[in-house]
Amino acid sequence: MSSIPLRPDVPLGAPHERSDAARNRERLLSAARDLVAEFGAEALTMDALACKAHVGKGTVFRRFGSRAGLMMTLLSDSESEFQHGFMFGPPPLGPGAAARERLIAFGEGRIYFVLENGELLKAAGAATRNRFDVPATKLSHRHMEILLREAGIADPRVMAMSLTYALDPERIVDDVRVRGISPTRLTDSWRELITRLLPAA
Amino acid sequence: MSSIPLRPDVPLGAPHERSDAARNRERLLSAARDLVAEFGAEALTMDALACKAHVGKGTVFRRFGSRAGLMMTLLSDSESEFQHGFMFGPPPLGPGAAARERLIAFGEGRIYFVLENGELLKAAGAATRNRFDVPATKLSHRHMEILLREAGIADPRVMAMSLTYALDPERIVDDVRVRGISPTRLTDSWRELITRLLPAA
Repeated sequence: MSSIPLRPDVPLGAPHERSDAARNRERLLSAARDLVAEFGAEALTMDALACKAHVGKGTVFRRFGSRAGLMMTLLSDSESEFQHGFMFGPPPLGPGAAARERLIAFGEGRIYFVLENGELLKAAGAATRNRFDVPATKLSHRHMEILLREAGIADPRVMAMSLTYALDPERIVDDVRVRGISPTRLTDSWRELITRLLPAA
Repeated sequence: MSSIPLRPDVPLGAPHERSDAARNRERLLSAARDLVAEFGAEALTMDALACKAHVGKGTVFRRFGSRAGLMMTLLSDSESEFQHGFMFGPPPLGPGAAARERLIAFGEGRIYFVLENGELLKAAGAATRNRFDVPATKLSHRHMEILLREAGIADPRVMAMSLTYALDPERIVDDVRVRGISPTRLTDSWRELITRLLPAA
């Protein structure tokens, strides 16, 4: 997979990982996700994960190194999945649809990705801002730039930056949790923005 | 003037200020702006200002309280001027032009405002981000919302938020100073965005 992890040194599943180790890893990550979904990211401690997954605490530490490592692995996995979707997945997010439809699907996917991972982003201490030194943000920006060029935008690089900021994770999280705007209003407005920006050919 | 200062407790020129006092204040602020323009915001100290304006240091302290107070006054003055422009000034920024033309002029004005005041914004320790608890940001957002509603956007509140983030001060400053994008490219791209978003009636 050519996806770029949030931090290149976080193991994404080495190619020669034995399948039982891979299964164990998946089981731990799935338990970790359940903990976050149920009790929030603060509840995700190494102890809680060991308990939830019925393994020893040593196993959890050997696997992820630290609580921060665990969180980065969770984030990196989600980010990779989303990246894989827009680069290689089925249309309209992936190749095969018109640039306009792909951009609409990209923004919708991004909004839900941020809302699902916002807790984790904050807790992991990762910048929730659009930092352009983060490889995942660069890749997203580049993806939008290519689609905007395909759709005839005069300065696709600068327009992609405007759209990246419109999808700022902090903005999305604050809109929903502080300003009480529903996720559907966000995705509807994104659709209106792209539909008007790139009229149907 | 109904403009909202960045910090309500910063004096914007009280109504009963005597005219010689007002002139002195204006002279000090003008000298302060010259210092920032010539040597950057770091050079703006109370000493340097007193020296530049040929007054005693005590006068500068009595007028602005502290270096931070001086910076907030400078910022607040610029912000008020820009606010006055879009609320009461001549078209296309002010009333009298179509929503589309007013939004184009607003973004252009905002980009130059940020570039002129970026140094000061950083040095004053003011958040260079679009914090929605800052009255000036709320007013800008509301202004865009009204214009977007006038132009027939389905959810003007959420769209105004997207456009506010596209004009994020940190984005504008980084585009120009870090990524080497010219201010003209930024304003051209803003014009393309609004022109496509709100086709001519």
